[in-house]
Amino acid sequence: MSVDFRNDPYTWEGLTGWKSYRMARPFRGMYWDVRRRLPYYWSDIKDGFNYRTFAGTVRIFFVNLLPALAFQLDMERNTDGYFGINEGLFASALAAVVFSLLSVQPLTVVGITGLISLFNYTVYDIAVDQGVGDIYPQLIAWVSIWAAIFHWMSAVFNWCDYMRYITDFSSNSFGLYVGIIYMIKGVEELVDQFNNGSLSGGYLSVVIALCYWATVYGLELMGSTIMFRPYIRKLLSDYAYPIATIFWTGFSHIPGRIKDTDLLRVPHTRAFYPTVDRSWLVDFWNLDVKWVFVALPMGILLTLLFYYDHNVSSLGAQAKQFPLTKPAGFHWDFFLLGCTCFIGGIIGIPLPNGLVPQAPVHTDSLTEYKDRLVTSKETDDKPDAPQLGHNKKIIVADNVAEQRVSHFLMALGLIGTMTGPLLVVLHTMPRALFCGVFFVVGWGSIEGNGIIDNAIYICKETRFVSPQEPRRSLRKSRIALYIMFQILGVGFSVAISQTIGALGFPVIIVSLIPLRWAILPRIFTEHELLVLDAPTADADVVLASMGGQPELPEVKLARQKREAQDGDGEQGDASGTSFASNASGLRSREVVGSKDEQEDAREKEQLEAQRGVEPTLRTGHA
Amino acid sequence: MSVDFRNDPYTWEGLTGWKSYRMARPFRGMYWDVRRRLPYYWSDIKDGFNYRTFAGTVRIFFVNLLPALAFQLDMERNTDGYFGINEGLFASALAAVVFSLLSVQPLTVVGITGLISLFNYTVYDIAVDQGVGDIYPQLIAWVSIWAAIFHWMSAVFNWCDYMRYITDFSSNSFGLYVGIIYMIKGVEELVDQFNNGSLSGGYLSVVIALCYWATVYGLELMGSTIMFRPYIRKLLSDYAYPIATIFWTGFSHIPGRIKDTDLLRVPHTRAFYPTVDRSWLVDFWNLDVKWVFVALPMGILLTLLFYYDHNVSSLGAQAKQFPLTKPAGFHWDFFLLGCTCFIGGIIGIPLPNGLVPQAPVHTDSLTEYKDRLVTSKETDDKPDAPQLGHNKKIIVADNVAEQRVSHFLMALGLIGTMTGPLLVVLHTMPRALFCGVFFVVGWGSIEGNGIIDNAIYICKETRFVSPQEPRRSLRKSRIALYIMFQILGVGFSVAISQTIGALGFPVIIVSLIPLRWAILPRIFTEHELLVLDAPTADADVVLASMGGQPELPEVKLARQKREAQDGDGEQGDASGTSFASNASGLRSREVVGSKDEQEDAREKEQLEAQRGVEPTLRTGHA
Repeated sequence: MSVDFRNDPYTWEGLTGWKSYRMARPFRGMYWDVRRRLPYYWSDIKDGFNYRTFAGTVRIFFVNLLPALAFQLDMERNTDGYFGINEGLFASALAAVVFSLLSVQPLTVVGITGLISLFNYTVYDIAVDQGVGDIYPQLIAWVSIWAAIFHWMSAVFNWCDYMRYITDFSSNSFGLYVGIIYMIKGVEELVDQFNNGSLSGGYLSVVIALCYWATVYGLELMGSTIMFRPYIRKLLSDYAYPIATIFWTGFSHIPGRIKDTDLLRVPHTRAFYPTVDRSWLVDFWNLDVKWVFVALPMGILLTLLFYYDHNVSSLGAQAKQFPLTKPAGFHWDFFLLGCTCFIGGIIGIPLPNGLVPQAPVHTDSLTEYKDRLVTSKETDDKPDAPQLGHNKKIIVADNVAEQRVSHFLMALGLIGTMTGPLLVVLHTMPRALFCGVFFVVGWGSIEGNGIIDNAIYICKETRFVSPQEPRRSLRKSRIALYIMFQILGVGFSVAISQTIGALGFPVIIVSLIPLRWAILPRIFTEHELLVLDAPTADADVVLASMGGQPELPEVKLARQKREAQDGDGEQGDASGTSFASNASGLRSREVVGSKDEQEDAREKEQLEAQRGVEPTLRTGHA
Repeated sequence: MSVDFRNDPYTWEGLTGWKSYRMARPFRGMYWDVRRRLPYYWSDIKDGFNYRTFAGTVRIFFVNLLPALAFQLDMERNTDGYFGINEGLFASALAAVVFSLLSVQPLTVVGITGLISLFNYTVYDIAVDQGVGDIYPQLIAWVSIWAAIFHWMSAVFNWCDYMRYITDFSSNSFGLYVGIIYMIKGVEELVDQFNNGSLSGGYLSVVIALCYWATVYGLELMGSTIMFRPYIRKLLSDYAYPIATIFWTGFSHIPGRIKDTDLLRVPHTRAFYPTVDRSWLVDFWNLDVKWVFVALPMGILLTLLFYYDHNVSSLGAQAKQFPLTKPAGFHWDFFLLGCTCFIGGIIGIPLPNGLVPQAPVHTDSLTEYKDRLVTSKETDDKPDAPQLGHNKKIIVADNVAEQRVSHFLMALGLIGTMTGPLLVVLHTMPRALFCGVFFVVGWGSIEGNGIIDNAIYICKETRFVSPQEPRRSLRKSRIALYIMFQILGVGFSVAISQTIGALGFPVIIVSLIPLRWAILPRIFTEHELLVLDAPTADADVVLASMGGQPELPEVKLARQKREAQDGDGEQGDASGTSFASNASGLRSREVVGSKDEQEDAREKEQLEAQRGVEPTLRTGHA
């Protein structure tokens, strides 16, 4: 099915009167989300029967389960045992079942994140601080109920549209923040091996964690090399997690010195029961009204967190580099998230939401990459130099197995893990592996991050940088100024996360969006922002759910300026319709004004095109 | 001074009668070695006053000292304390003073290797086995005295000439063997941290060793990137060892958990005294004549080991990729080595000889590399593809600070280290660092090894390999067969090194040379050997000391075959003079026969030229 989502009926452009008010037309986004995607439901099942879906299932199962367990251990430690392994597995399984069957975009994997762990134990710290640690179950239940209500409101009143204003400026900051939190959690978990285990067990854990990290990292890298036959390197990189997990779990059981070392392992639990002695349903009705209202602002903060976190995760799963053809549905999915918040709240499990670092992993593992041979001739600029032949491997994303099956199989796997026998298997795993998982996933979010990339670019000796690098047209001090804003945002967020004020960190992250829209265009030129920033969502298949692509403020500003300069109506086409109309992932801009400017713009576009191609292609050298 | 060493008077070609017998003309090689180099003595001092010499001194000091100490600890453990830290420092300092002042080629650094450690404790094992462990000092002294005598004989009778027959076939095998031994020693040393330390200390040692390895490796890699300004990345890579050593020594003293962990450190010793209670001079005259003659074959084996090890190390220090201008002197230097053997023997210190993995490190750190920008245009073979500009950094070896000063300063450093205060500083170092050093140095010898490179090439998907790769013209099964010979040699050597038969391993390594000259040319074609193998020494400045370059057997064979085919005198120029006459590092071959063959040969030479360039140039990508 090849549908053009460019002129989707769900739009707010050109509307006037009451029809242009989002709140006046509830359920409009949700309705179109479902209507747009429903025709694909059967193909979402049918398209799931292939090898890629299987490989994707294995990979996402491990990448979802292992950090979830790790965060769960973290939460258990910090809430004096209220949230345990079973709650974590339950939450992950619940989310996986609901979202695999009912979501519009089943590529977005929902589960336990580090931020909900942080949120939950900060609320616990506050409750203990106030001397009411015993009402924590009811309090957190009410926080969840409030959050559910605000989720539903956001979905019903079409507020997810505002996600289209998110650019790489804030989503990169968020990605870096999450990556750093993961690394910190990895180290904290390692420190815990010393505190609750033994000195030797602690050091052995450090060794295992580092080796696990190196193993997964190395195996995943295999896919981009030209070593072995294509299917061998694909197997190695597809199953990096299970290979490393089985190997290092086995390693930790080698008889002799290693076996004798006192390693902490995943605790034994009784299948299907809450960790503390309680029934699954929390008696949330037994809470003082005062505390119900204390829960309200916390619910708002949680909504703010999930609004950003879940939707950015969803954008990550549908990022530019994946050739997706099936439409997104932000409103409907956010409504569903409200439902899991509600259920999760009243049964006392940690609330699942979109996993940021893992989001692209799922889609990536479902993407069929093709190795393509590019032969080229390289000619040295010196006149007498010989012409060298070049064979290069380019990895091209050919198609994505867009389906619900991998997500659903993962759900079955999680439910399976909750049963007695598999809990015993879990118990054989050293907790050090989770530290390794934190490092792998966290580092994945840091390594390729745009902020880091810009920072590295600043440190590079420019003369060795290829001439088609668009950043060469900017002064390095300007790039430094740009990432300084991001680094400040990340720094504040990380810092506040270590304190009892951690609940406030979503405010900082979200405040980067107005900063980008209101202030940055006054500091940076249109060209600078064009090179350094881009909307995080830019495929029509994704934007359709959010009412199409907005005009960027710097473009608008530049247009207004030019219009003011040029005065009269030499160019009448500079209307408000500057939405991206090409599917290639580039922003179209209204180029008006002098010939000079037009040439300039054409050149820029060329640079952008070359740069924009890069994320899709991973190059392996001979 | 620009001297042409192509027509050096020291040659045995074209001689007849008694004049052509090497043994009939003793001292001829030594005489010419000195005569050739003596004019440079003053410049060897003068050329030492520059930054590179200083950087080289620091680097080679660490790379010499740290493994020497590590091997010393290994030897101490395995000889029940006969050889200790002071003996090791004394031996290193003695060798450094003698070779920095008196050698013809001061680039070749002489010190304690893993192989002498292996040799010494195998002799000890044999003595203990025979129930005469108490005569070990006298026995090993006599082994050394015999070795000294055979060294002198080799030098006097010009036998070092035969080093010119060493090709990459055996020197790569030896390099790999040494690299593996280093890695094994690193692991053994780590295991010892568990055996003689504590469990937690052992695991912490593993962490420190791995991190030390990664630190040095990463810092040394910095030099080939385009990060930071050139002098910053040069500083980081020049001082990788001291930076890592100071950092991780400091790390191991962090108060708290790490400081409380029971780490093994370098033992305290009293300055300038032998480790066991004895005078420096060994009473070698108090040995039963029977044992004196038992020492004789051991002395021969030791000579065989040093003949190969020292000279290959010397070739490594003067390898193809370094633009050297001052001549080598194998005969004279081997004579000197006999002297250090004699002195070392009678005072009971481990015998120093050329360090194989460290050999190129010294010259490398003395080489002034220049970053050169190469701009080129890359044109995709597809007709519509855009032309991409390419900026590439190429590192070119500009010149080498060929001098004696760095070697001499290192000697002073070693003498300084023998004094009381610095022995105390040494004591602060965790022994885990030595494991890290083993890993760095051993891995350095494995990573770039030709055998590994060929093995990787076999695993590669050929279609992505650049068309100018000469190995593309060979069948992969032939390359596999070729490296199989090498791997067998390495495998046997490593295996025998773990047994009491370890004394015999030099025989295996040395036997690779006749294998290469007598058998390989009958299995592989001239073209195959041309692509896969090359003489280890091929610069005239090096070959002059060995009587020039010999004709390779496969070339000779192919020539004889063609001559037999062609019958009469169509080509009279196919005489015996097929020595390389170009300084570019390529073997010239007598190309005779049909036009087809000539074209073929021209093409091959072109391929070789492009390939031959690679080792000199290290490329950094943007």
